[in-house]
Formats: sequence, C-alpha cells, structure tokens
Amino acid sequence: MYLQLDGRGPLYDQLTRALKASILDGRIAAGTQLPPTRELAQELEISRTTVLTAYEQLRAEGFIDGRVGSGSFVSQLQTRPPVHHDRTDIDAPSRYAQRVREVCNWDIPRLHRGLRYNLEYGYPMINPTLNNAWGRELARAAAYTRLNSLEAAGLSVLRKQTCDYLARRRGVQAQPDDVLIVSGTQQAINLTARVLVNEGDPVVLEEPHYFLAHQALVAHGARLVAVRTDEHGLVCDELPAQAPRLIYVTPSHHFPSGAVLSMQRRLDLLHYAEQHQCWILEDDYDGEFRYDAHPLAALRSLDEQDRVIYVGTFSKVMFGGLRLAYMVMPAALRSDFLGAKYLGDMACPVIEQAALARFMEDGGFERHLRMARKELKARREAVIAGLKEHARDRVEITDTPAGMHLVAWLHGYDAPRCQALIAHAAEYGLGLHPMAPLYLHTPERQGLLLGYCGLSVNELREAMRLFGQCLDHMELA
Amino acid sequence: MYLQLDGRGPLYDQLTRALKASILDGRIAAGTQLPPTRELAQELEISRTTVLTAYEQLRAEGFIDGRVGSGSFVSQLQTRPPVHHDRTDIDAPSRYAQRVREVCNWDIPRLHRGLRYNLEYGYPMINPTLNNAWGRELARAAAYTRLNSLEAAGLSVLRKQTCDYLARRRGVQAQPDDVLIVSGTQQAINLTARVLVNEGDPVVLEEPHYFLAHQALVAHGARLVAVRTDEHGLVCDELPAQAPRLIYVTPSHHFPSGAVLSMQRRLDLLHYAEQHQCWILEDDYDGEFRYDAHPLAALRSLDEQDRVIYVGTFSKVMFGGLRLAYMVMPAALRSDFLGAKYLGDMACPVIEQAALARFMEDGGFERHLRMARKELKARREAVIAGLKEHARDRVEITDTPAGMHLVAWLHGYDAPRCQALIAHAAEYGLGLHPMAPLYLHTPERQGLLLGYCGLSVNELREAMRLFGQCLDHMELA
Repeated sequence: MYLQLDGRGPLYDQLTRALKASILDGRIAAGTQLPPTRELAQELEISRTTVLTAYEQLRAEGFIDGRVGSGSFVSQLQTRPPVHHDRTDIDAPSRYAQRVREVCNWDIPRLHRGLRYNLEYGYPMINPTLNNAWGRELARAAAYTRLNSLEAAGLSVLRKQTCDYLARRRGVQAQPDDVLIVSGTQQAINLTARVLVNEGDPVVLEEPHYFLAHQALVAHGARLVAVRTDEHGLVCDELPAQAPRLIYVTPSHHFPSGAVLSMQRRLDLLHYAEQHQCWILEDDYDGEFRYDAHPLAALRSLDEQDRVIYVGTFSKVMFGGLRLAYMVMPAALRSDFLGAKYLGDMACPVIEQAALARFMEDGGFERHLRMARKELKARREAVIAGLKEHARDRVEITDTPAGMHLVAWLHGYDAPRCQALIAHAAEYGLGLHPMAPLYLHTPERQGLLLGYCGLSVNELREAMRLFGQCLDHMELA
Repeated sequence: MYLQLDGRGPLYDQLTRALKASILDGRIAAGTQLPPTRELAQELEISRTTVLTAYEQLRAEGFIDGRVGSGSFVSQLQTRPPVHHDRTDIDAPSRYAQRVREVCNWDIPRLHRGLRYNLEYGYPMINPTLNNAWGRELARAAAYTRLNSLEAAGLSVLRKQTCDYLARRRGVQAQPDDVLIVSGTQQAINLTARVLVNEGDPVVLEEPHYFLAHQALVAHGARLVAVRTDEHGLVCDELPAQAPRLIYVTPSHHFPSGAVLSMQRRLDLLHYAEQHQCWILEDDYDGEFRYDAHPLAALRSLDEQDRVIYVGTFSKVMFGGLRLAYMVMPAALRSDFLGAKYLGDMACPVIEQAALARFMEDGGFERHLRMARKELKARREAVIAGLKEHARDRVEITDTPAGMHLVAWLHGYDAPRCQALIAHAAEYGLGLHPMAPLYLHTPERQGLLLGYCGLSVNELREAMRLFGQCLDHMELA
C-alpha cells in the first residue's frame, strides 16, 4: 500500500498520520484489513515496533478495530462530503468583535520601523539593574510561594503592601479587602466597563484622552461623550446634563496634556457624580512621577460617597511586561469586580505578586521609584531644554513637572502639515506621534505627544536637535 | 486651632490630612488665614519644617492660597452639602455583572474549611522540586528578557515551542501565528465568548460539564443548550436543529465523566459544525494525562474546515498560579482574538513566557510532565483500589485511564441523601463534592467528583477508607 510519510516528528507519528489521512479520505476503505505489522515494516523498511505503535494508536483513536494478532481492520467510519458555504456570515463575529475591528488597527505603521529616536509614549523606562534584581526576587518568591494559590482578589500580602503604599504616597486610605490586583490598567478599565456599562450606555471621557481607554470602552459598546479639558483639567461645568454611567478621568496628571485637576474641580466632579449617581474611574497612571512637591492626593482620597474606582499601575513604575496593576473598589461593587475577575481569568500569576510584595516590603520598590523619578526628571528637562533651543517659539509646551511625556503644540500647523512633519521626521530617524488620534472629535489645533521615557538624556538632546531641523525644513517647504 | 493628628504615617502627612479635613468640613472657613508656621509648630510641638511641608502640600493641592511669608489663606472652595439618594438603583450594575451575581457564590462553604482530605477537583499536583527549578528558570529568563516587550499574541519563542509540543504530543499542526498565549483556560473561554457570542446567542455545552465554562458563558449572556453525554462522550445525534453559535466540548477526556469522544462522533461533530456554520471550542484541559497509550489526537487535528478553536493549558501541567494557557485560533478569527486580548489586558507577563519557552526547549517541561503523569497514575490507582475495597458495589466508577479526577456514581442515593453523605464526610475531615452542580438540568442520578490531584497515595488510601466508613454510616442512618 502507498503511504507518504511527512518526515515530521517520530516515525510512528508519521506512520499514524499517513494511515489516518488515507482512511479519512477513503483511499483505504472501511473494512479493509491493514497489512500485518511485520509485512508493512518490511515494505516501509522501518522497525516492526514502529508499526505496532502506530496500529495501537489508530486502535486507541477508533480508526481500526480488531486486536493485534487477529488482524487490524479499518473501522466503519461514516465520513461525509464537505458542505460548501460562503463563509461571510459565519465569520461575522460578535458585536464586540466587530467594534474591536473598528478600533484596532493591526498594521504597525511602516513609518515607525527601525527609528533611531522614537518618541513614542507608553513604554516605561528600563532600569538596567532591574533585570537581575527582579530575577532574584522571582527566584526567591518561587521558593516559598504556594504555587497553586488562586486568590481572585490578588495575593493578600500584595494587597496589604498596596494599601500601605497608597496611604503613604497617594493619601488613599484603603483596606486590603478594597483592593483588587489586576493584569495592568487595561484590565482595570475592562473590568470596570464589564461591571458598569451596558451596550449603548453613555460614558464620559476627557477630550483629549488616553487612546486605549477610548478603544476598550468603544469595544464594550459604550456611547462616548467627550468633555473638554483646559489647564485645570476636565471642565466640570460642561459635564452632560444626562447622567452617564461612568466618568473616566486622569486627575493627578491629565493624559495627555498634563493638566492637574484643580481642587475646586475635584470637588465639583465628586458632587456631579453624586448628583447624577454615576461612577468615576480615576486612572492614576503616573501619580508616582511628580518632580516638584509630593504627588497630589488622589481624587479617591476626597471621595466620601464611595463612587470613585481608583486604578494605579505597577507596570508603569517597574516594566511593561510585568502586567500588574491594582484597583481600589467601592464597597458596593466589590463582589461584582471579584466575580468579573474570577470568571475572566481567575487571578493574576502568583509568583510575580509574591515577588512584588516582598520587593515593596524590603524597600526595593521605593528605591527603584526614587531612581526612576530622578532619571525621568533629567530626561524631561533635556526635552524641554532641547525644545526651547531648537523648536523655540514654533511650539508651545503644556508643562507640569510630572510624568513620562510632554505635549508640544505646533503653531500654524493643520492636520496635513502635521502629517508631513511626522513623515519628514521619520526620514531623519525621528519618531513623532500626533495628538489628533487622542481626540474623539477633530481637534482645533495640532500637536505632538512626546514620550521621553525610552530614550537617554543624550539621545533626547539629539532627538530635539533633529526635531528643530525638521521644523526648519517645514518652513522652507 | 484644634487639630487631631491620626498618628498614621509621617507627621507632615498627618498634619496635612488634619488641615484638609478641617477645611473640607468647614471647621476652618474659606478665607481664614492659617497660623504662621512657627506658631503652629510651637502649638503642636512639632518642627517648623513639618508645618512648612504640610502647608506646601496644601498649597500644591489648592487648599490654601498665598505664598509662605505673606501668609497662607484657606482657598475659596465651594463645597456642597451631600445629596441623599437611596443607592439601590445606582448600585445596579451592568447586565453582565447581574449575571455574574447569579452564577458566582462567594461564600466558601464553611463545610470544607480545614479538612484533612479534600477531594476537590481543580488544583494541579505540586511537584516539590518544581519551586526551585521554576525559580531558576524565572531568574534566568529575567536576565535576558526585554522587560517592556508586549506581544498581544504572546512571546514568539513560546508560541514556537507550543507548536512543536502540539505537533509532537497532540497531533495538532499549527504555526506560531495561529497561537495565542492567554492567562489560563478561563481567559480562553472568555475571549471565545467575547469574540463569538452576543447576549442571547445559543451555545451548546456537554451535560454534565465544566462548571467554570458554564458560569463564564452564562455571565456573557449565552443561552445554554445542554446536550447529553454517554460513554462515548457528546451524543451528537441530539445536537439542536437550530444552529448554535458555539459548541464547548472536552473530547479527549469529557469533563467530568472521563468519556473519550469516539472517532465517529468526532467526525459527526465536525460535520454538524460545518453544516450549521458554528464554531467548536475544544477544551483539551488534560489531554497530557493519559496513562495507557499515547494521548488521543485532538479534534482540531481532524478539522479541515478550520472551525475548531483549540485550548490547552500550561497551568494544569505546571501549577495553578502560573496562569498560562494557549489557543490555536482559526484563521478567520485570528485578528478578532488578538484584538480582544490586546484591549482586554494587552498581553501575558513576559518573564513567565520566556521562562516557560526555555523550560520546554530544554526538555524540563517534558521531564516534569512524565514525572507528573507517573505520580498521577499512582494516585488514580490508589483511589480505584480504595473504592473497590471500601466502597465496593455501592458506587460505580466511570473509568478512563486518564486525567486528574474520577466520578463515583452512588447507587440508591437521591439529592438530599447525597448532601447528607457529604455533610457526614466533612465531620470525618473528608471533603466530598457532588456532581449535581455540574448539570444544567437536574441529574437523574447522584454522584461524586473525586479529584485525586492534591493528595498523596497514602492520603488517598486513608481518604477512601474514611469514605467507606461514611457509606457504612449512611446505610445505618
């Protein structure tokens, strides 16, 4: 009998696959007796054991009947000819997936491949000493962690450390039971949408806003309402008359403008939420990174009505691939969040959590944080100095002594000219990123989101010099 | 001025909190000049620096105006009296959360606290040598991993290793681009529901079935249709005439009965899916653990229409707290799954993935697997021997040489009597778990789900002896 072995994996697997294929496509008809193992072994010049193993496997899978010795016969398997459909309708996914298709663009722009200086926002700075320090923490944690423990809320030692940290650094008083450990801010936004938002429910966003929150909320089917921000953050007087389900805000350092929500506005926002009986999601994505006084106390710390869902992240402070963040849940929603987390992915990985708890307890986390803050401050100053020297009055910086990025507003640029600038910069190996995608509506002015986290001070100096050249070029163009 | 310091954290924080509280509740009126720092320092018997720091913080947060020296005045903050609502309606969460409330029960049954022998299903066996071996892998991986890398699909080296493993052990031919690394089977089930199921869409489950799949699908709003299973697994002739969106099956080892889906039924199921243009979610949750021949080839390996979403888990093989599993995605759904994963939590933690890829490449994973299989086989045999000796003809075991659990059907038990048995066993320190919750409809017979993963051979012997005593007791009762 003709059998084509495909040469992948062990010989008995190849033989099993070949025989299966022949049986399924009818080349070996049902009822046929397979050749005795010795015979087939000789024919294929392989060991008899190999053939025996293959037959045994086929028998186990119901392809052949009969016992070794009494002969092996191909089972009566009823195979049917394939039905032919056009796939269009079955491939139509859920409404959720359809919305994901609308917001997600999977082609990484060719433009930003292999740039020398990419001022992209999002990646935390890498502390070169962190790899080994963290590796030691992980190994240490692995040694004593109960590997099977699955606490939906998160490891209690980490929740405890998180509470101490929040009280100390963010003025947030929380108990470990209020804390939920999640796989990054993105999951926090998702769980919040899951727990609070039905398809079509209105949700308020800042304009401009964090694009991944926008995308996640759209995917969930939220009806987005963008509310203007100014130098004091969200303009609370312009909150909609109709009550939204949820308000997503970044009070300590508005993303991306950097505006700090003023105390009066904080009180107004809390009052609005109370009046309209809606919830506030406070994304404190970089509250750790203020370079002047102490970080501002979180909105949550002023919340007496227990309407603020507070989110902070460890990934931004440590490294992007860590995927750990934390939420402070209002008491009324606690069991809903726990249920959504548990049914969603049960719990976060246990060893990371144990290692991080220990890292925080030992003060390694704070040391790392101080170091990161110092370095980020230097990078930030390099960008500002570079802009002053090379971009001069052609850009306007909205400036808060905080964070991992800056916004440079371009004077006298419209959208096409901004795109031209970005394209030109890419030719110089400089990665610039427009503000426009961070708006729900068309913005009235053009700007650039400058993430300075990923480049060293010297790289940033050079990047700013290049930026100046690009602006010069655009004036000539 | 009267200030109550709460003694939590640094002194300046306590002072800041105390002043804030007084300002917010109006005890210190807007416009009031705060006492000079030196004066307040003397009054409270604390250092002047502490007071200066507190004032600085209050100024930064907009609680007071004016510069140090010229005096500090309480800002004109408009605070409003709290509105009073009954919270009932705002606390009504999304429909998703309401369904979660229906399926999730958060009171861990007192019954199963502190049992000597808990035959609970779900926790993988712990290999005592794994802690250190895995710790070394993590430390090693941390040293060379790009800590910021965020691949939504999962680390490519791990996807490559997964493909090799699937081809070698499960007969599944997949390319790294077909693979999505997820945070456990639970997330795989969720993403599948997300991508395919709208509220109200029919989804087919086996009866009985894996309870967490049931709960997750209910939470998503799926309309569940339970189809009977027998000793050959899902009874395909009884699949509904109306096309479901999705069919959730456990073909290689039906959960919980252990039945292996026969080859004919596999072909019938694939044909049904093709005819009705629906998708199949193949949960191969313990395909690794067969103690006779090689594991059966996966349903996915027979799937020529690319309708099977295959899910396998690393957590079951390694340890529960790992939270890593993998999906093989049909080409038509690939970008939808990637989008849902990315917007859901962006990606799985990077170091774990790197460590696991290395562990698989070095053969440590296979070694661990062999060892686990050997040990589980011994435990399984201990349970069966124990049941034969102590439970005798009072129970019937559905027996496949596979997996991490058994089902023991109880002769002549109704639901209340089964509960009485479980309650009595708990008094003996023996944790028994009923089959009833694994059914959508009321089952016609009572049984117990015996998970033997968490106990040693000797513990299992003792547990079975106790079980026998409990059965004796029930006969006298």
